[in-house]
Amino acid sequence: MDSMDYIVQLGENAKKSKASIANAKTGEKNNILIKISENLRKNTDKILTENKKDLNNARDNGISEAMSDRLRLTKERIGSIADACLELTALKDPIGEVLDGSARPNGMKITKVRVPMGVIGIIYESRPNVTVDAASLCIKSGNAVILRGGKEAINSNKALMDVMRESVAECGFPMDIVQLVEDTSRESASKMMKANGYIDVLIPRGGKGLINSVVQNATVPVIETGSGNCHIYIDKSADIDMAVNITDNGKVQRPSVCNALETCLVHKDIAESFLFALKEKFDTHCMNIELRGCEETRRILGNDVKPATNEDYATEFNDYILAIKVVEDIDEAIAHIAKYSTGHSECIITEKLSSAEKFQKEVDSACVYVNCSTRFTDGGEFGLGAEIGISTQRLHARGPMGLSELTTCKYLVNGSGQIRQ
Amino acid sequence: MDSMDYIVQLGENAKKSKASIANAKTGEKNNILIKISENLRKNTDKILTENKKDLNNARDNGISEAMSDRLRLTKERIGSIADACLELTALKDPIGEVLDGSARPNGMKITKVRVPMGVIGIIYESRPNVTVDAASLCIKSGNAVILRGGKEAINSNKALMDVMRESVAECGFPMDIVQLVEDTSRESASKMMKANGYIDVLIPRGGKGLINSVVQNATVPVIETGSGNCHIYIDKSADIDMAVNITDNGKVQRPSVCNALETCLVHKDIAESFLFALKEKFDTHCMNIELRGCEETRRILGNDVKPATNEDYATEFNDYILAIKVVEDIDEAIAHIAKYSTGHSECIITEKLSSAEKFQKEVDSACVYVNCSTRFTDGGEFGLGAEIGISTQRLHARGPMGLSELTTCKYLVNGSGQIRQ
Repeated sequence: MDSMDYIVQLGENAKKSKASIANAKTGEKNNILIKISENLRKNTDKILTENKKDLNNARDNGISEAMSDRLRLTKERIGSIADACLELTALKDPIGEVLDGSARPNGMKITKVRVPMGVIGIIYESRPNVTVDAASLCIKSGNAVILRGGKEAINSNKALMDVMRESVAECGFPMDIVQLVEDTSRESASKMMKANGYIDVLIPRGGKGLINSVVQNATVPVIETGSGNCHIYIDKSADIDMAVNITDNGKVQRPSVCNALETCLVHKDIAESFLFALKEKFDTHCMNIELRGCEETRRILGNDVKPATNEDYATEFNDYILAIKVVEDIDEAIAHIAKYSTGHSECIITEKLSSAEKFQKEVDSACVYVNCSTRFTDGGEFGLGAEIGISTQRLHARGPMGLSELTTCKYLVNGSGQIRQ
Repeated sequence: MDSMDYIVQLGENAKKSKASIANAKTGEKNNILIKISENLRKNTDKILTENKKDLNNARDNGISEAMSDRLRLTKERIGSIADACLELTALKDPIGEVLDGSARPNGMKITKVRVPMGVIGIIYESRPNVTVDAASLCIKSGNAVILRGGKEAINSNKALMDVMRESVAECGFPMDIVQLVEDTSRESASKMMKANGYIDVLIPRGGKGLINSVVQNATVPVIETGSGNCHIYIDKSADIDMAVNITDNGKVQRPSVCNALETCLVHKDIAESFLFALKEKFDTHCMNIELRGCEETRRILGNDVKPATNEDYATEFNDYILAIKVVEDIDEAIAHIAKYSTGHSECIITEKLSSAEKFQKEVDSACVYVNCSTRFTDGGEFGLGAEIGISTQRLHARGPMGLSELTTCKYLVNGSGQIRQ
C-alpha cells in the first residue's frame, strides 16, 4: 500500500470510530483513561523491552546521549505517564459546555455548545511519552487521534499504542479512536498534511524544522506550536534583585524549553548596575552562561562578552547563551521585540505602573508578563491541568493549549416552524 | 515590481500601521466608520462613474446579466453600504473583553483578554460591496486588512478604497490599515496565500473554485467559508404542513445562497403524504422546481421526477433543483448527511423529542436545526449584528462569523517577582 492509501485507510478508520468517542459520556472517557493507566503499569516490562530496541538502534546509529535520553523509558517514567492519564480523569470534561445562547425575536432558541474537533493528527519527534500524553488528551476531549511519531521511537510507540488500543477495546469502544502511523517515512508525514476530509486539525510537536515543514506543506488546518524567542526588558524603574532573579530563572533553570529567555533588553540608565549584578549571579552557577552583547554591554561587562549580531537576536538558542542589548527606552525595547520575537512570551521588570501597562498593551505576544518569569508559560502552571502544546499562532488557540483548545462549537437552533421572510 | 515584492510591500505597510488600529479606542474606530459612511454618500457620483467602467468592460467581455447585476452599484446600493457601516458603530467592541482569568497559588494573576487578529487578508470575487463590508468589520475589530477583489470590479474597488483610505486619514489614522491589492493577476492571489509573517488569517469569499484554491495553496492560516450542501430530514412524526413550509422556504426563497436546501430526506412512513403536499406547494410557484429523486420518490411522484445520482446528492445546486431520498429511518438520514454534507446547516422536522435530540447530537454540522429553516444560518439572523462569512471548518470559528471571530486572545500575567521552581 502506498503512503497515501495507508493514510486514507487510517483516516477512514478514524472517521468510522470518531462518533463513538465524540458522543461518549464523561464517565466512559474516564474509564478508558483509568484502563490505559492500569495497563501501562501491567505491561511495563514489555514496553521496556521494545524501548530497549529503540535505544540499541539509537546507539548503533551514533545518536547523541541527549537524544537517547529523550527516547529512554524507565519504570519510573512509565509510572509518570500512567499517573498523567489518571490525573486527566479529574479535569472537567469540556464537551457539552454551553458557550453562548439567545432567544431570537421570532422565538427561535440558539444554543452554542462545545463539541469535539473530530479527528486530530499529531506529528512529533522522538519522545515516546508524547504518544500517551497526546492520545489521552484527545480521548478526554472526545476526539479520535492519529499519531505519527519519529522513526527512532517506533518500537516504543507501537508497544504503547498496543496497550492503549487494547484498553480502549476493553472499555467497549472501537480501538481505531487511537491509531499510530507505523510507516515513519517522510512520505507518510507529507500525506497526513494533505489528508483533508480525514484530519480536522494537525498539531506538530517538535523542533523548528518539523514545525516549518508542516506549516509550509499542510493543506489541513494546522496549529503552529512551540518556537519561542522570548525577551525580558529591564525597565529603568526595575527592582534590580527581582530583575536578576527573574532573568536568571528564565535563562538558567531549563534553557532547552520554548519559554526560556533568549534576549535581555535593559534600559541604559540601569544597565550598569543590573548587568554587574546579573553577571555576578550567573557566575555562581557551575555551568558557564555565554553572553553576547551590544557595544554598550561590552563596554560595561568587558570583552569577555562576545559581540551580538542581528542573527543572535533572531535566534532561539535553547542553550546557556543570552543575548543582551542596552536600549534607550521602553519604546526601543518594544520595537526590538516586535522585530525579533516569535510571539511566545515576553516580560517587563518594572515598578512603574504606566510602563507595565504600556508593555502589556503594545507587546503582541501570546503571554506578556510583568514582574514574573516567562518560564510560567505552561498549561500546568496556568491551571489548565494538562497541555497539548503552546500555540504561537493567532488562529483558534494562542498560548498554552488545554482540553478546550481541542474542541470546536456547534449551534443548536430550536424552533416551532419559523421560516425566513 | 513582481507580485511577491508587491504583496510584501503591502504586508510591510500593514505591519507598520496595524498597532495604531489595534490600540485605537472604540470611539475612534466608530469615528472612522462614520466618516467612511459620510464620504461614501458624498462621493456617490464618482464611485458610480468608476463602476460604470467595470460594467462596460463586463458587457464587452460578454459577462452574464446575473454577474453584471452582482457587479452593479446604484445610488441606493451605495446608500445601503454606507448604512451598514453606520450600523457597525452600534455593535459592542469585542477588543479588551476579559475572556477568563485566575489567581494562581503563587500569587500570579492571569487575565485572558481579547485582542485583534492583526492583519486580515480577504480574497473575494466580483461584488464590490464586500470591499466596504469586510474593511469596516476589520476596522471595528481593530484589524488592518488587505483586500483582493476580482479584476471585474477593479475600478469600483479602487474608488471605494480611495474613499475609505481618505476617511481613515481624516480621522488621524494611517491609511494603510485598509489596502487594496490592485494587481488582480492570479499571481497576486497566490502570493497572498504564502504571505506568512504578514497576513495572520486569510478568508476567501466566493465560489467553490476560489475557496478550494485558497485551502489547497495557502500556507498562512485560512478560514474556509461558504460551501453549503444543506439537508432537511422529515421525520416520521413530522407535522406535514410545517415540513412543507420549511422545505419550501429552504429551497425556494433564495436558492443561490449557501444556507439554501439541496437535499430533502423523508421517512418512508410519511413519504407519500409529505411528497404530494410538497409537490402541490412547489406547483404554486411561477418558477419550475426540478426534482431529482430515488426510486421510491419516483414511484410516489411519477416519472416527471428525474432519477437522483450519488453526484446529485453531493452537489450544491444553488438553483431551483431539489434532490429527494426516501429513507428507512433517522439513522439512515444521519448516515446520508454524514456522507454528503459540507457541514454547514441541516434540519430535522419532528414532533418527537428523542428524534430531535438524537439528530442534534449526532449530526456534525455547524448549525443543526429542529423545526425551523436552514435559511437562518446568517450573522444578522443569529444576532451577531454583522457577518464576515460562514465558516465550514472547525478550527477557530464555526458557523456565522461576526466581530469576535476576527479576534484572538492574549494572556496578561502579573506578578511580584515569582520564578519557576
